[in-house]
Amino acid sequence: MTATLRDLGEFELIRAITARFARGRDVLVGPGDDAAVLAAPDARVVVTTDLLLEGRHFRRDWSSGLDVGHKAAAQNLADVAAMGARPTGLFVGFAAPGDLTVDWALALADGLAAECARAGATVAGGDISSADSIMLGVTALGDLEGRAPVLRSGARPGDVVVLAGSLGRAEAGLALLTAGLGQGADAGWAGLVTAHRRPRPPYPLGPALAAAGAHAMCDVSDGLVQDLGHIAAASGMRIDLDLAGLTALAGGAPLRSAAAELGADPLDWVLTGGEDHALVACLPPSAAIPGGCERIGLVLPGTGVTLAGQPTAGRGGWNHFR
Amino acid sequence: MTATLRDLGEFELIRAITARFARGRDVLVGPGDDAAVLAAPDARVVVTTDLLLEGRHFRRDWSSGLDVGHKAAAQNLADVAAMGARPTGLFVGFAAPGDLTVDWALALADGLAAECARAGATVAGGDISSADSIMLGVTALGDLEGRAPVLRSGARPGDVVVLAGSLGRAEAGLALLTAGLGQGADAGWAGLVTAHRRPRPPYPLGPALAAAGAHAMCDVSDGLVQDLGHIAAASGMRIDLDLAGLTALAGGAPLRSAAAELGADPLDWVLTGGEDHALVACLPPSAAIPGGCERIGLVLPGTGVTLAGQPTAGRGGWNHFR
Repeated sequence: MTATLRDLGEFELIRAITARFARGRDVLVGPGDDAAVLAAPDARVVVTTDLLLEGRHFRRDWSSGLDVGHKAAAQNLADVAAMGARPTGLFVGFAAPGDLTVDWALALADGLAAECARAGATVAGGDISSADSIMLGVTALGDLEGRAPVLRSGARPGDVVVLAGSLGRAEAGLALLTAGLGQGADAGWAGLVTAHRRPRPPYPLGPALAAAGAHAMCDVSDGLVQDLGHIAAASGMRIDLDLAGLTALAGGAPLRSAAAELGADPLDWVLTGGEDHALVACLPPSAAIPGGCERIGLVLPGTGVTLAGQPTAGRGGWNHFR
Repeated sequence: MTATLRDLGEFELIRAITARFARGRDVLVGPGDDAAVLAAPDARVVVTTDLLLEGRHFRRDWSSGLDVGHKAAAQNLADVAAMGARPTGLFVGFAAPGDLTVDWALALADGLAAECARAGATVAGGDISSADSIMLGVTALGDLEGRAPVLRSGARPGDVVVLAGSLGRAEAGLALLTAGLGQGADAGWAGLVTAHRRPRPPYPLGPALAAAGAHAMCDVSDGLVQDLGHIAAASGMRIDLDLAGLTALAGGAPLRSAAAELGADPLDWVLTGGEDHALVACLPPSAAIPGGCERIGLVLPGTGVTLAGQPTAGRGGWNHFR
C-alpha cells in the first residue's frame, strides 16, 4: 500500500521533508522554529514570491513531483538572479490533499532541493497545510554582494540587449503536451517537454551581467515581448529586437519540427512564450558581453518593443483573469 | 454593477492593490520589479512563511476581506516577533476567482497594510494568480537589531514562563461562529469573534522579551500546550503551567459566558486554542518581566507540559491531515 499524507500526519511529514534539505552556508537558523534566520551579508536582501497552483501552473499527469519542485524553485530563483543577486534561501508553503502519496511530496522536496543546489541556495523554511488540490507559495531570497540591484528602469539609448538562456522551448513543450504529443519519440521534442517541466535558468549569469555593468535586467516569465515591454516602459525607451537573431533562435530543429506538426509559428513561441526563465539585460555598448549570452536587440529612444523596426502589437503574453 | 477581478484584469489589479501600500523605511526597491530589495541592517534576516486557504483558514461569510488581510499579516508578523525581531516587510501571493469583487481584494490589501502598520512593517511585494478559491501565501521578514534570535531550544531550569497577549479568545470566537452565535448582541462575545477575525499579536513585546534576556520564545498558533510542548521538547525541559494564572485567564466574563452557552470548558480554550498569536517566553528568574506580560509557569527538569504538576495529555492542538 502506498502511504498518503493522511497516513503520515503533519509533523512526520514535516520531519520527512526537511530531512531532504541540505543546510546551506547562508542558513543560520533552519526549519523548526517560529522563523528561519538567513545571512544577509550585504545588509540588503532581495525577495520575490510566487504561487503555483495545480491545474493552472502545472498538471500532475504532465509533471512529476520532482518536476514541480524544480519548476517552483526555478521561477523564483530566476527572479533573484534577474536583480543581479546570488540566491541564498528558499521558503515553501505547501498545501495538498490528504490522499496525496508521501512519495509525491518527497519527490517535490527533492526537486526543490536539487534546483536550489543548481542556484547555490537551500530550502530554509516553510509551511504545510491540507487543501483540495496542490498549491505552493514559494519565496526566494538573495544577496547583492555589494552591487546595486539591476532594475527594469535603467535602460539607456544605445544599450545592447542580451539574452542568457533559452526562449520558446517551454512554450513549445507545453503545446506538445496540450496536443497529446508529449510522449513523441523524437529526442528533440522530449527536450522541449523537459524545458516546460524543468526550466533551467542561467543563475550565475544574473550576477555576471550585473558585474558587467547591466543597466536593466529581467527574467522572461511571461514572454519576451511582454517582459521587455516592462523594461521599455519603466525606462522610457524603445527596444528593437534583431530579426535575424530571433529567427535563428526559432530555427532550431526541435522548435521548427514541433511548430510544423502543430501548425504554429516558432517565432511566436520565441517572442511570446513564457516560463523558460531566460534573463534579458541591457548592457552599455562598451561592456564585455559575458560568455553564454547573445545579443538580440538594441535600446533606442521611443516607446514599446519592435522587431526590426516593426510593431509587435498582438504578440502579447500572459495575463491572469483574462 | 460591482466590478470583478476579471473586469479589471491582472495588471490593473496589481496597480490598484500596490497603491494601497505605503513604502516603508526598510523598503529599498518595492513592488514592480522582478524582486524587491529590503534593508537588512543586522546582516541577518528573519523569515517565515504561511499559507491561508479559504474554507480552511477563513470563511468569506465569517470574515471580510479586511479581516482576512489583518489575520494573514498578523500570523506571519507574530512569528517574526517571536524570534525577538522587528518586522520589516511582508510579501503576499494572492490567488482568487475571476468573479471575486475588486472591493473584496482592495479590502484585503487594506487589512494587510493596516496590520503591517501595527507592526512597523510594510507590504513590499507579491504575486497574483487566478484560482477557484481564495488563497494567500504570506512571507514576513524581520531584523534582529543586533540581538541573538530567541529560539525554542534555550529554556533552562528555573526560567519563568511569561505570556504576552491573549489566549483562548480566538478559539472561543470561532466556536461562537461555528454555533451560529457570531451575531450575538453581547459585546463581550463580539470581542471574541473579533479576536478570531483579527488577532492582535503584541509585536513590540517580541523584541522587548528578547532584550530582557529571554532564553526561549514562540508564538501561540496551535494552542498553548502544543506550542509550549515544542519549547519543552527542543530545550529538553518540562514546563509546568500555573493553574491559578490560567484559570484566571479562563475566568473572564466573555469566555465564561460563551463556554456556558456552548457547553465548553473555557480552560480548554485557554490551553489548546490557537490563533490568538500570543507570545510565550522563558525568562531567567532574575530578569525584569516587561510590562504587558504575565507569569504563567515555570521551566523544570523533565519532559512535556504539565498543569500544576498534572499531565496535560489529551489537551492537544491542531494537526493538519488528521
